Amino acid sequence: MRILYQLTSPMEKTVLGAKEVARRREFLQERAAAGCQVEVRSLADGPASIESAYEAALVVPELCQAVRRAERDGFDAVIVGCFSDPGLEALRELVRIAVVGPGASALHLAAQLGSRFSVISPLGGGGLGRVEARLRALGVAAKLASVRSVDMPVLDVARQRGAVLERLGEIGRSAVHEDHADVLVLGCMSMGFLGITEEVGKEIGVPVVNPVTAGLKTAEMVVAMGLAHSKAAYPVPPKLDAS
Amino acid sequence: MRILYQLTSPMEKTVLGAKEVARRREFLQERAAAGCQVEVRSLADGPASIESAYEAALVVPELCQAVRRAERDGFDAVIVGCFSDPGLEALRELVRIAVVGPGASALHLAAQLGSRFSVISPLGGGGLGRVEARLRALGVAAKLASVRSVDMPVLDVARQRGAVLERLGEIGRSAVHEDHADVLVLGCMSMGFLGITEEVGKEIGVPVVNPVTAGLKTAEMVVAMGLAHSKAAYPVPPKLDAS
Amino acid sequence: MRILYQLTSPMEKTVLGAKEVARRREFLQERAAAGCQVEVRSLADGPASIESAYEAALVVPELCQAVRRAERDGFDAVIVGCFSDPGLEALRELVRIAVVGPGASALHLAAQLGSRFSVISPLGGGGLGRVEARLRALGVAAKLASVRSVDMPVLDVARQRGAVLERLGEIGRSAVHEDHADVLVLGCMSMGFLGITEEVGKEIGVPVVNPVTAGLKTAEMVVAMGLAHSKAAYPVPPKLDAS
Amino acid sequence: MRILYQLTSPMEKTVLGAKEVARRREFLQERAAAGCQVEVRSLADGPASIESAYEAALVVPELCQAVRRAERDGFDAVIVGCFSDPGLEALRELVRIAVVGPGASALHLAAQLGSRFSVISPLGGGGLGRVEARLRALGVAAKLASVRSVDMPVLDVARQRGAVLERLGEIGRSAVHEDHADVLVLGCMSMGFLGITEEVGKEIGVPVVNPVTAGLKTAEMVVAMGLAHSKAAYPVPPKLDAS
Amino acid sequence: MRILYQLTSPMEKTVLGAKEVARRREFLQERAAAGCQVEVRSLADGPASIESAYEAALVVPELCQAVRRAERDGFDAVIVGCFSDPGLEALRELVRIAVVGPGASALHLAAQLGSRFSVISPLGGGGLGRVEARLRALGVAAKLASVRSVDMPVLDVARQRGAVLERLGEIGRSAVHEDHADVLVLGCMSMGFLGITEEVGKEIGVPVVNPVTAGLKTAEMVVAMGLAHSKAAYPVPPKLDAS
Amino acid sequence: MRILYQLTSPMEKTVLGAKEVARRREFLQERAAAGCQVEVRSLADGPASIESAYEAALVVPELCQAVRRAERDGFDAVIVGCFSDPGLEALRELVRIAVVGPGASALHLAAQLGSRFSVISPLGGGGLGRVEARLRALGVAAKLASVRSVDMPVLDVARQRGAVLERLGEIGRSAVHEDHADVLVLGCMSMGFLGITEEVGKEIGVPVVNPVTAGLKTAEMVVAMGLAHSKAAYPVPPKLDAS
Repeated sequence: MRILYQLTSPMEKTVLGAKEVARRREFLQERAAAGCQVEVRSLADGPASIESAYEAALVVPELCQAVRRAERDGFDAVIVGCFSDPGLEALRELVRIAVVGPGASALHLAAQLGSRFSVISPLGGGGLGRVEARLRALGVAAKLASVRSVDMPVLDVARQRGAVLERLGEIGRSAVHEDHADVLVLGCMSMGFLGITEEVGKEIGVPVVNPVTAGLKTAEMVVAMGLAHSKAAYPVPPKLDAS
Repeated sequence: MRILYQLTSPMEKTVLGAKEVARRREFLQERAAAGCQVEVRSLADGPASIESAYEAALVVPELCQAVRRAERDGFDAVIVGCFSDPGLEALRELVRIAVVGPGASALHLAAQLGSRFSVISPLGGGGLGRVEARLRALGVAAKLASVRSVDMPVLDVARQRGAVLERLGEIGRSAVHEDHADVLVLGCMSMGFLGITEEVGKEIGVPVVNPVTAGLKTAEMVVAMGLAHSKAAYPVPPKLDAS
Repeated sequence: MRILYQLTSPMEKTVLGAKEVARRREFLQERAAAGCQVEVRSLADGPASIESAYEAALVVPELCQAVRRAERDGFDAVIVGCFSDPGLEALRELVRIAVVGPGASALHLAAQLGSRFSVISPLGGGGLGRVEARLRALGVAAKLASVRSVDMPVLDVARQRGAVLERLGEIGRSAVHEDHADVLVLGCMSMGFLGITEEVGKEIGVPVVNPVTAGLKTAEMVVAMGLAHSKAAYPVPPKLDAS
Repeated sequence: MRILYQLTSPMEKTVLGAKEVARRREFLQERAAAGCQVEVRSLADGPASIESAYEAALVVPELCQAVRRAERDGFDAVIVGCFSDPGLEALRELVRIAVVGPGASALHLAAQLGSRFSVISPLGGGGLGRVEARLRALGVAAKLASVRSVDMPVLDVARQRGAVLERLGEIGRSAVHEDHADVLVLGCMSMGFLGITEEVGKEIGVPVVNPVTAGLKTAEMVVAMGLAHSKAAYPVPPKLDAS
Repeated sequence: MRILYQLTSPMEKTVLGAKEVARRREFLQERAAAGCQVEVRSLADGPASIESAYEAALVVPELCQAVRRAERDGFDAVIVGCFSDPGLEALRELVRIAVVGPGASALHLAAQLGSRFSVISPLGGGGLGRVEARLRALGVAAKLASVRSVDMPVLDVARQRGAVLERLGEIGRSAVHEDHADVLVLGCMSMGFLGITEEVGKEIGVPVVNPVTAGLKTAEMVVAMGLAHSKAAYPVPPKLDAS
Repeated sequence: MRILYQLTSPMEKTVLGAKEVARRREFLQERAAAGCQVEVRSLADGPASIESAYEAALVVPELCQAVRRAERDGFDAVIVGCFSDPGLEALRELVRIAVVGPGASALHLAAQLGSRFSVISPLGGGGLGRVEARLRALGVAAKLASVRSVDMPVLDVARQRGAVLERLGEIGRSAVHEDHADVLVLGCMSMGFLGITEEVGKEIGVPVVNPVTAGLKTAEMVVAMGLAHSKAAYPVPPKLDAS
């Protein structure tokens, strides 16, 4: 099984650099099932991180090409490497291989593990109402307890392990004690790649869902089951289909 | 008051041509309030029509530039010229002038006029479940009766007034009698620009909401009230804000 | 276009007096679109203000006569002058001209401008649960953030501009910062007629929807589009229809 | 315990006459618990039946006086004698004795007896969407299977036992087999007073909830438990409270 | 009419003892309608109280036998004596006599008396999210204001009238003032049997629903109306039906 | 990683016999990830299949012992071998190792793959309303398109591969074309063990989710991520915790 983890930034050109791309590939490969090979690809262009719908929108056209190339290259699944699942519907229309949104995967897993979950987000994105709207669209809003933010830019999240760890501890406890959450969801891939999920979970005493591994394991699951997203739900665009 | 109706295709380069762009400008200007000047701009590039999330995604980056230019050019509001409101969240993050999604405007108006509405869509877009997800996100799903399709490509809709009129009559009656709808929403701007809304409404006996005029009148309303979308809901992307 | 703003009290006989009726007419006319003529009519009888379902119920029978007279007098639309939209369903059954509830109009507009809205109400009406029930009925409950009250009787609201302005500032900030609201709705026509909406909006930094202008502009929109409420949803009462 | 069944029409003056008023009192008294005395009062004025929101609105002012008189006369509870529960919120604001809406009682009982219920209504009232809105407001919409109508005026329902019985059999079977209902609710007090509920239930094989007895038994329950509606939810109108 | 109140513990063998069983029978009989005879039966085995889904699950098999025996013994209805309504769906499949869940009855009654209710629970059960899930299943979640706990084991609740009374006062006020509840529901039968409901209600000023009497009165209502749960919703298990 | 697939019947004693137990173990092991060892255990007692809430309730006490034994035996996760996830909340309270409900897993996976799903169930269980209630509790009801039944007892399903295959084809097409489903969920483990999922999916052209593999892969995912259900949501029963 071959899975592509498609970064949603030109990470080599950012402050995180090629080293981080390589580290993320390793992070994923280490957590992949035996027999599953994970590749990581970055974009040629685009913002250094996605902290708004605007930045998400900018990268979708290149993502469209990326998933089509992935299909031609024989990948079995593509994970869209941003918690906001940018362009998921569009990407799914274009290919028959599974396109997995790690945000949706993490949220659905959280919903299975407890009765109320909180999402912990980085800076940006518009707050509770925007997340609620997204969760209503996904059909998993019933168990949302709250959205709380670490109030750090994504690129800082990616480089400040200690600060994030501390903030997550505080915020997570507030989510549990004030918002009645019993599961937490890390709302940012860069948080997930810090490898602090278990530590946070132990400290707070509730499951913490890492969208990186949630996306990876969901992709493995879907491929292993011989499935992909429904082409009845995400049909090939009529003009492409005709051509 | 100056309102930009931003087409989401390079219409001059399509089979509809510059004449249709001019006609649509006239259509809008005729229906605009006194003192409201409407301009129509098309895109430089992109697909000839939007019949999928993929095509919607392709045009958003250019739309982002378009709304910023519109703000600089002194427009009071921009109407995004596609019923699917492509990129609405992204566009709203970028500017302080009102960005109006005619789909959302039409749906909210329909919800005010009756107790259940049906959306009549052109070819494409994935069907009932996709529309339901969008309406849940918008917060107007409670009154959705059904989604029915004329099963014609958008470009045919734009050019086959008679055929569309006939299909709308049939479909509308089914929506009313089988799905318990008491309001209909035309789910496509090209349908709206045919100028057949009143005729259909009279024939079927229920209000038919034209997204073209719903978007125009909502833009006028928002500007007249000195309002725009909330910047607390759609904040400037942090990296743009910092620069 | 002729629009009737139907007061829901015998305002000339109240402490507000004929002068306030005239002032409200001017307020509306100034904000009306060119070519739109607004008339204001008060009731012959009834309580001085509506601060309960009881008082709302008392005025509906006279409102029923008022909308029928308005239809006979050639008005194109009637705005029911109370945020609670008293008797809206009944009034709509009686006539074919548009009957607009400014509460519903304001709520639907708020839902279009942001992701969560708070309603700021005067004294009375039973609190959060009652508003929630109404919003569920209208189908716009998904984005409700909170209901907060200025705790002032309606007649005081109408006469104490300064006090209301101060209270709205405080309450609005609480709604934004504690309840995650990004749009505010003034839940009282007398608040709306104070002409303080923009000032409050600027101070708090989120859109503030004035139900007076929301109702007016919605009425203009509906008439301009050749629409009215659905007679399939609000049919003529069978016994009237038979006669 | 003394319970007032408050008719919502001047029944003595209608084609149903004083005899039907007396019959309904007997019907109720026969079904009342030992020690519970039921009185029936009609209105002095108003339409002969309620088949629209308009007619409902017309009777609420007199109902307001009626519940206040009932409280002064020492009744423990008032049942508002129409399935649409006209003016329930207003009436509850005025008194501390229990005001019971038989529609709400029947719907809540139906929700307890099965997993999906259908409402069978007489002529009028606007159809599925209007009922859905009401049920969302009441908070019992989740189990609504459908609304089906016998398409007979209320006064015919009251006098054509055989025809109603036959229609209910047909309609009920459709509700069960086509709409997946497992409980039926008679949506009209005149249906309930025909005394055919058990017969229909046996024929169709699912519970049929009679709003007449549901209202009566709920009133008895509330009084026996020393309860009434919440005055925190339905506070005395401020101006009445001050006086 | 004969009603069985089926305890969900072997109460004679617990610290509460046979005396409490007798007292509860008296408590119920005193509150029963004239002509209604209430019997109380305990289980032969099982935990001393139900404070978890685990303990609820343990008693359902014996409850299955108990309701079948009750049907053979000629009872008209069985009340399952735990607020969590353990095994309600299973029990209803087995018999045609009414099986009443007092939790569901109390929640539906609360929903009829106000606009938002809070549930006050004893120790255990998993908190807000678990209660929300249950209420969504029941279809009465729309009016839930909050869940607050007295944080006392059920057996302490049953024996410490004074402490419970004090805790309920505090908690109830918080529910009303902080959570906007206007009705309270005692979420534990042992609380209900303390006979403190009215006292708490008077002190806090909102209706307090006792699940003991709510269950009893609902059972009386259902039997008096000739109803029971729907066998279409709760069919006899196919293998039992075949035998 | 060691996973226990816990059958919910004494399968060796049923018509399916020890051979089927062995076959199911093989079925699972073949589909397990490398390094994952699956064991299958049956119950000592109980009905031959679960076709009702009653039968589900009967097996939960023994399942409680089984999951505790599984924890002692060092398993990393237990899959409860019935689509109805019998006793899931109870079982989760008792242990810290992951307890996976394959029904919930399949439903959440289906929700991720499309926009509307239909559940295809065997004989029994009470129909649409009962499934809807369960899905509301789980928080995944928004995308439910329909429930359709093959109308065959579970034990027949397990032995009549051809008949099931044919019925699934018919029913699945109806779900897609009449109910607007774009994903199907097999609502029965015995259907899942037939190994016909891919064949059905290919024939109908939409993803078909097999709860057997959905449960297995979800268990693997949860264990691989170092997670389990939340003990804050499913706390140890207080009396067990104290001992």
